[in-house]
Amino acid sequence: MLPDRNFFETLAAAAAAETLPRFRSGLDVDNKLAGGFDPVTEGDRAAERAIRTLIGEHYPDHGILGEEHGAEGLEREHVWVIDPIDGTRAFISGVPVWGTLIGFYRNGRAVMGLMDQPFTGERYFADGGQSHYAGPGGPRVLKTRRCEALEDAVMFTTSPRIIAGHLQAGYDRLEAHVRLARYGTDCYAYCLLAAGFVDLVVETGLKPYDIGALIPIIEQAGGVVTTANGGRAEDGGDIVAAATPALHAAALAVLNG
Amino acid sequence: MLPDRNFFETLAAAAAAETLPRFRSGLDVDNKLAGGFDPVTEGDRAAERAIRTLIGEHYPDHGILGEEHGAEGLEREHVWVIDPIDGTRAFISGVPVWGTLIGFYRNGRAVMGLMDQPFTGERYFADGGQSHYAGPGGPRVLKTRRCEALEDAVMFTTSPRIIAGHLQAGYDRLEAHVRLARYGTDCYAYCLLAAGFVDLVVETGLKPYDIGALIPIIEQAGGVVTTANGGRAEDGGDIVAAATPALHAAALAVLNG
Repeated sequence: MLPDRNFFETLAAAAAAETLPRFRSGLDVDNKLAGGFDPVTEGDRAAERAIRTLIGEHYPDHGILGEEHGAEGLEREHVWVIDPIDGTRAFISGVPVWGTLIGFYRNGRAVMGLMDQPFTGERYFADGGQSHYAGPGGPRVLKTRRCEALEDAVMFTTSPRIIAGHLQAGYDRLEAHVRLARYGTDCYAYCLLAAGFVDLVVETGLKPYDIGALIPIIEQAGGVVTTANGGRAEDGGDIVAAATPALHAAALAVLNG
Repeated sequence: MLPDRNFFETLAAAAAAETLPRFRSGLDVDNKLAGGFDPVTEGDRAAERAIRTLIGEHYPDHGILGEEHGAEGLEREHVWVIDPIDGTRAFISGVPVWGTLIGFYRNGRAVMGLMDQPFTGERYFADGGQSHYAGPGGPRVLKTRRCEALEDAVMFTTSPRIIAGHLQAGYDRLEAHVRLARYGTDCYAYCLLAAGFVDLVVETGLKPYDIGALIPIIEQAGGVVTTANGGRAEDGGDIVAAATPALHAAALAVLNG
């Protein structure tokens, strides 16, 4: 039996019980000076342990790829792809644009995914057919904006100063084309793209668990997400997400041009 | 009689009634194509009207400086300094790091201030003696972190690509010194500084209403905020906010060095 929304939400709640009490806990500098683990590292590890325990109990025949505790059973039909705290720099800084990412792959293809932001109370969930939002303002089905031209696009990247070298010139050209370029959001920007408020996200050097949960959220809202050379995004790498196929094609042309 | 916290919160609620329904309303591109006002412009203007009406009713002898509807009575003893939506680019993009800024000056000195973020439910308020947080996690009195060295500091700016030309080289030197540089937060970063999660904020070309409400929030939490040449920040300009006097001095030395 495949997992349902309820199970994803159980996983998210278990993770939030470990992450949220450590967010803005104010211990960062003290712990660092004392040589101990910082709250984000502790939260990351404890949240992934909680998620893996629940998956092991309910789906012992599924594989798991997590940021903190490694891979097991990646050759299996069903594999969970997990980043307990995506956006650790946002977490450290107190900005609630980090998220818990829980992706579900079937035969190597990302088919379901959840992003949970427990401080704001936002959840973005792809159920295999549609993408859904729950949180402030009330629940709704997500649709990307019908933005087709770079000149109309709102673009995000985590930082224009950590773009991989081979794409820096292409990224800078893109920034000169778009209507608005913004920074500093990690996983949150992909969810805003699915929700129709952001049109383009470009990031380089992502791991599978940085993007796996987000692929279905983007695709099932009508968006397109690939590597910078147009391939599937499940294995991570340099990633381009766009609200529409036309915008995606335009972005790839400028990025690689 | 001076305004109390209750009156600031009444102003914030009146503003939120105009801003929050327009946040993530999804009408941005449609309205733009139709040639109408975009939601952020509408929200900005309506929120400032609501705030000004309440101030006029309760404190007819106070002056008001607002982003959208100009200045009146700036020579008076008490002046309100208002930005109904600080961080319009964040607002447009769906990221809840914009805020309603309500500052209160006495004889040209910022003495009270409120930052309200209605989507996350966060309020940061300086009452003339202390700075306070209300929102997720529960209320508390704010204290800046005791960070004194650039090497330990988390620094924010809205964008490293919109630093004023005469400070670009100094800003880049600062970025090379700090522990972590992050982008994209507007007014939110100053509140996180007051709350002890961010240690340094540098921005250039601010208007009085971009910083006026934030000065007391920073100072009454133990922080320091001045212009880049060390003067008072009430009139805006190039702004440096720091968690401690030592960190502030170190930042100014590198920025201007």
